[in-house]
Amino acid sequence: MPKKPEILKATTLAQTRLFHIEALDLEFSNGVRTQYERLKGRSEGGAVLVVPMLDEDTFFLIREYSAGVHRYELTLPKGRVEAGEDLLEAANRELMEEIGYGARQLEHMTAFTLAPGYLGHTTQVVLAQELYEQKLEGDEPEELEVVPWRLSELHKLVACEDCTEARSIAALFMARERIMHGL
Amino acid sequence: MPKKPEILKATTLAQTRLFHIEALDLEFSNGVRTQYERLKGRSEGGAVLVVPMLDEDTFFLIREYSAGVHRYELTLPKGRVEAGEDLLEAANRELMEEIGYGARQLEHMTAFTLAPGYLGHTTQVVLAQELYEQKLEGDEPEELEVVPWRLSELHKLVACEDCTEARSIAALFMARERIMHGL
Repeated sequence: MPKKPEILKATTLAQTRLFHIEALDLEFSNGVRTQYERLKGRSEGGAVLVVPMLDEDTFFLIREYSAGVHRYELTLPKGRVEAGEDLLEAANRELMEEIGYGARQLEHMTAFTLAPGYLGHTTQVVLAQELYEQKLEGDEPEELEVVPWRLSELHKLVACEDCTEARSIAALFMARERIMHGL
Repeated sequence: MPKKPEILKATTLAQTRLFHIEALDLEFSNGVRTQYERLKGRSEGGAVLVVPMLDEDTFFLIREYSAGVHRYELTLPKGRVEAGEDLLEAANRELMEEIGYGARQLEHMTAFTLAPGYLGHTTQVVLAQELYEQKLEGDEPEELEVVPWRLSELHKLVACEDCTEARSIAALFMARERIMHGL
């Protein structure tokens, strides 16, 4: 593995409720100096994305208004890990709030970055199985639509114009590898 | 499809060389009003991610310093679509700059969002086949390491700690579906 560049200086350029932009003065191991901008991660606890399996084939998505692209998107349920929560607790709470199920079996599958070149964000992925009906009130401004789909029809999902989120797509392929092929 | 919330007002909160943070005042179709923050996309032309196939099984990754997470990451080659370039031209240029190959066959596969709830970023994904050796100078501060891998060993790649980028992982699974299963 190459030697990391040295961070000579980190300067906050802007900070809002959700975002924190930093400038990094870097020196690479070959002596080249440069400045990069990056966005720091959104929260200390990080974010969690849940793959909720109703059975070996059926999973649930939500259809939610997505302000970043100003349209409704089909994605896996997700949210922030709150202070004092562990990852699996947060996954189960988001599941109850967003799709109305809890899970008896929760398992950490992987961690994703979004665009590691300029975003610090990391999302933990949790596979949820052995679901039971249990609704918790969330803080969404409107009711979310819950959409069941099948792993055996994943190729049709990724062809939908409103299913574009790379994290959800990558998590579903990895869940399918694990559940259907034991990988 | 539900009716989109109305954007009552969009206010720039901060703007730097790379980032543009906006506050949106929204009214949902049920009358609920709320304010969201979002990051606008990085550039007009958008970003392109390339899946470069040397043969039916072998593809190329790059190992690159990623400032957002301050470590080296294994990802597919990618970059911005520059003014005056079309998408496939940009894909081929990035390929030549980052891995030292051009492609005789370039095909738009899909478009990904990263976190559509609060990021406007969209990445176009291009499948590159029929490669030939052709190096272009890029603007990287240090030489990138080019790493060959196999679609048949994708499950080993996604288990690597330095391969976390959801876009690359999702694009590789989708390329495998297309190349190996015609989906």
